[in-house]
Amino acid sequence: MPALGEFELIERFFTRPARRATLGVGDDCALIEPTPGMTLAVSSDMLIEGRHFLSTVAPDRLGHKALAVNLSDLAACGARPLAFTLALALPAVDEAFLAGFAAGLFALADSTGCELIGGDTTRGPLTICVTVFGEVPPRAALLRSGAQPGDDLYVSGTLGDARLALEAFRGTVALDEVSFREVRRAMETPTARIDLGLALRGLATSAIDVSDGLVGDLGHILARSGAGAVVDVDALPRSTVLAARPLALQRECVLAGGDDYELVFSAPAARRAAVAAAAAGVGVAVTRIGAIEAGTALRLVDRSGAGFVSDARSFDHFRA
Amino acid sequence: MPALGEFELIERFFTRPARRATLGVGDDCALIEPTPGMTLAVSSDMLIEGRHFLSTVAPDRLGHKALAVNLSDLAACGARPLAFTLALALPAVDEAFLAGFAAGLFALADSTGCELIGGDTTRGPLTICVTVFGEVPPRAALLRSGAQPGDDLYVSGTLGDARLALEAFRGTVALDEVSFREVRRAMETPTARIDLGLALRGLATSAIDVSDGLVGDLGHILARSGAGAVVDVDALPRSTVLAARPLALQRECVLAGGDDYELVFSAPAARRAAVAAAAAGVGVAVTRIGAIEAGTALRLVDRSGAGFVSDARSFDHFRA
Repeated sequence: MPALGEFELIERFFTRPARRATLGVGDDCALIEPTPGMTLAVSSDMLIEGRHFLSTVAPDRLGHKALAVNLSDLAACGARPLAFTLALALPAVDEAFLAGFAAGLFALADSTGCELIGGDTTRGPLTICVTVFGEVPPRAALLRSGAQPGDDLYVSGTLGDARLALEAFRGTVALDEVSFREVRRAMETPTARIDLGLALRGLATSAIDVSDGLVGDLGHILARSGAGAVVDVDALPRSTVLAARPLALQRECVLAGGDDYELVFSAPAARRAAVAAAAAGVGVAVTRIGAIEAGTALRLVDRSGAGFVSDARSFDHFRA
Repeated sequence: MPALGEFELIERFFTRPARRATLGVGDDCALIEPTPGMTLAVSSDMLIEGRHFLSTVAPDRLGHKALAVNLSDLAACGARPLAFTLALALPAVDEAFLAGFAAGLFALADSTGCELIGGDTTRGPLTICVTVFGEVPPRAALLRSGAQPGDDLYVSGTLGDARLALEAFRGTVALDEVSFREVRRAMETPTARIDLGLALRGLATSAIDVSDGLVGDLGHILARSGAGAVVDVDALPRSTVLAARPLALQRECVLAGGDDYELVFSAPAARRAAVAAAAAGVGVAVTRIGAIEAGTALRLVDRSGAGFVSDARSFDHFRA
């Protein structure tokens, strides 16, 4: 069978009838008609092999993850997903890879109502750039900038499994097969907390998704809000797999692991019951991990309340 | 001086106060408020070193080109530019490169009213992914699908200079210094025909921008419109530099050169005066190069009207 050309490739794997979009894949631009009066939320993430994913990842999981990490940005804003574009560089046309990638991508796209409307394919080192669009009512978006001293601080789900899986791949940690499979799934198929983001509109005073590690990402909330925070390191939620590891490793993973795609958010202490109800309503566990304080410092304490000094820091793509 | 981290990099080179956007660079999502009732046009292009640009390109020209090729897609739809996101992978933090890149990028962004609203930076092989947003009144977008037999066929500006420059870089063509400088400028700093696209709303029956070569791109119009066309190869507009080359090279460059970012469009023969007035109104030369016909074939003829057979074909990123 002859190699597929770029246009046949787009046609075969990535063209589906436009649904919400007025015009989808296949013209110079995609056309969409935003709901009148709604604000458009836009985010773009680029994933590069060896940096954001390993060559060992199954294509369908990679397709899932490429969209999930972008949906996670919409979730952190409380925006409802609408559509996305995909720019894809491939070293060669590999039909098995593309079929799997498209299957994983579209499964998540369909389950979140987020339509592929356009993009670009080219030859190059395996690189995936997704730009996602969502909508949110005017002034309802969750921002990083609204945390107030006295607010509770929460995180959804558990933290650190993705980092534990990465360390297992690197050979610095040994895991039994069942444990490895579990944390690998967390790393390769993260869940964007879209419903939680929607439920937190009008409730959370700030939010961000944990992509670079809790300490670094919470730092963005603090910087933008002009506030400090105290976090109980022992309260940070972790899976049973991670909880079975040495404490130092647990702490490194939950504080600086990254690739978690959980939401960290603040909410007034007076709204504690409403936060619990919102989380329960969407079936997502949220854990209170600390509080926003005056000042600018992020204080990490242990269960005893003693100061806990960590050199954990955000994963910075240009420093690591 | 210590290397800049990712966040300082974004802050230093790519953060400017939001203007049209409600919220620009620096949160999980950018927020924009589309003009009520307008349709949103979206396009995304990925540029990879060695494939879409040469390592010899000056950073400011690369910044210009990364945005220009995306604006060209908006132009081909008759959409007015609003905003864009930038995802950038860099092998290392090179401040001189970034300063130049940002200068070229923002110069074009400012002159076209297109605001940088967000993006992503990471380490990796030099790769640029821009996603651009524009707006167009409902049902006013220029599509590839509306060409009708009997319509005139036009192209803006001149074709082939970018390909001539590429051949000069490859060493297959020798040019004097002044000529080289001229065609190199065409290759490295293309002009998106935004004003022409806007002026052609309600006038052109189909349009596309020439990124992969006239034959291939016109082929998309024909396939989408279910029509054929005849093109006078000798009528294809070319610069004085290209016109001084051997005829076979001229024809290869104008037919299959690519990277031209001129608009190819069809319009009813009865609107010939209106097309001329629209083009004159925005100061862009347009040339009538043929006509849409019944059928599905693209017939290339020379000035005598004789059939001209060419093996020129569109540049296909996965075939070349």
